[in-house]
Amino acid sequence: MTTARQPQQERSRATRERLLDATVEMLAGQGWSATTVAAVAEAAGVSRGAAQHHFPTREALITAVMEEMFESMTGDASRVVGALPDDLDARVRIVVDKAVSIYTGTEFKAALQVWAAAASDPALREVILPLEAKLARAAHKFTVTGLDPTGENPEAHRLAQVTLDLARGLGLADTLSDDSRRRSQVVATWVEQLVAALR
Amino acid sequence: MTTARQPQQERSRATRERLLDATVEMLAGQGWSATTVAAVAEAAGVSRGAAQHHFPTREALITAVMEEMFESMTGDASRVVGALPDDLDARVRIVVDKAVSIYTGTEFKAALQVWAAAASDPALREVILPLEAKLARAAHKFTVTGLDPTGENPEAHRLAQVTLDLARGLGLADTLSDDSRRRSQVVATWVEQLVAALR
Repeated sequence: MTTARQPQQERSRATRERLLDATVEMLAGQGWSATTVAAVAEAAGVSRGAAQHHFPTREALITAVMEEMFESMTGDASRVVGALPDDLDARVRIVVDKAVSIYTGTEFKAALQVWAAAASDPALREVILPLEAKLARAAHKFTVTGLDPTGENPEAHRLAQVTLDLARGLGLADTLSDDSRRRSQVVATWVEQLVAALR
Repeated sequence: MTTARQPQQERSRATRERLLDATVEMLAGQGWSATTVAAVAEAAGVSRGAAQHHFPTREALITAVMEEMFESMTGDASRVVGALPDDLDARVRIVVDKAVSIYTGTEFKAALQVWAAAASDPALREVILPLEAKLARAAHKFTVTGLDPTGENPEAHRLAQVTLDLARGLGLADTLSDDSRRRSQVVATWVEQLVAALR
């Protein structure tokens, strides 16, 4: 029984992954209105029936995408925190780079579309806000731990907040055109500031 | 002739203003898809014909809204810069508050909708990018001048960039729920950092 079922479960999981990946790409590249369950199914090469079995509504699909982002972000972050160097400059640099990378990838561009849609859709906002808060808490925990591993610096909490708000602003500046050159200057300036404040 | 024409010109200008104000409100509250010239005309209590006389296309309307934001922002900014105190702490505080206010009002929420739509609409992006660049340059000039009125601090340019990216990130954090309490802490932390860096 188990051996016969395993492949089907694996196929089902692979289908789900394909749908979630296609949703992120479609949100980021084609926007909220274009991203329906049917359109995502077509882009992922999945039958409409199979897609609706996994995600009966767009809300279910979007919730799953946001949860997947959360999983991937927290997984990444704990790997980074687990391997940070002792040297303050190097550590701060890695933490800031990681924080900025959260907000400058395709996932963030996808999330921005959901955010913009939720601004005018109270029902969607109700779904998004708790996921958003969970993501923000995880990002904050990662940043504080990275900046102040021993938990001794009373300023670390607020400096982590500045870091994440700055990262979010840099992400937004990157949505319409490639802002990576300017961004690397801004990141270097903030890393200097942070090192000085934490030393 | 002049006296007879004057009231008509004034009425026309007032109609245009009403349409622009209604567009900002509608974008911020109801999103990009809902904000058509016809819907804006109805919300502003203007006939569809009169609205289309002023703004034949949604693109024309959105461009005018972005230009109006630019005018209002640069006007405000030059008033603020003209009246800054000499005291460093007080000056930095006012400049940061002003920078943050650019990104936390209804105008920014409206612009965010345009931004999100432009991410998946290359034609709209072509229209928005130069306006966006103009706005960014004006905001940067205001911030640099405010932080370093004598133009003597080589760090002021980069610190102004950090200030504006941070302000943009704070604006984004405020779109789905009121973030003003957390924001005031973040702003206080950044003002301290800036004063230390500029002293």
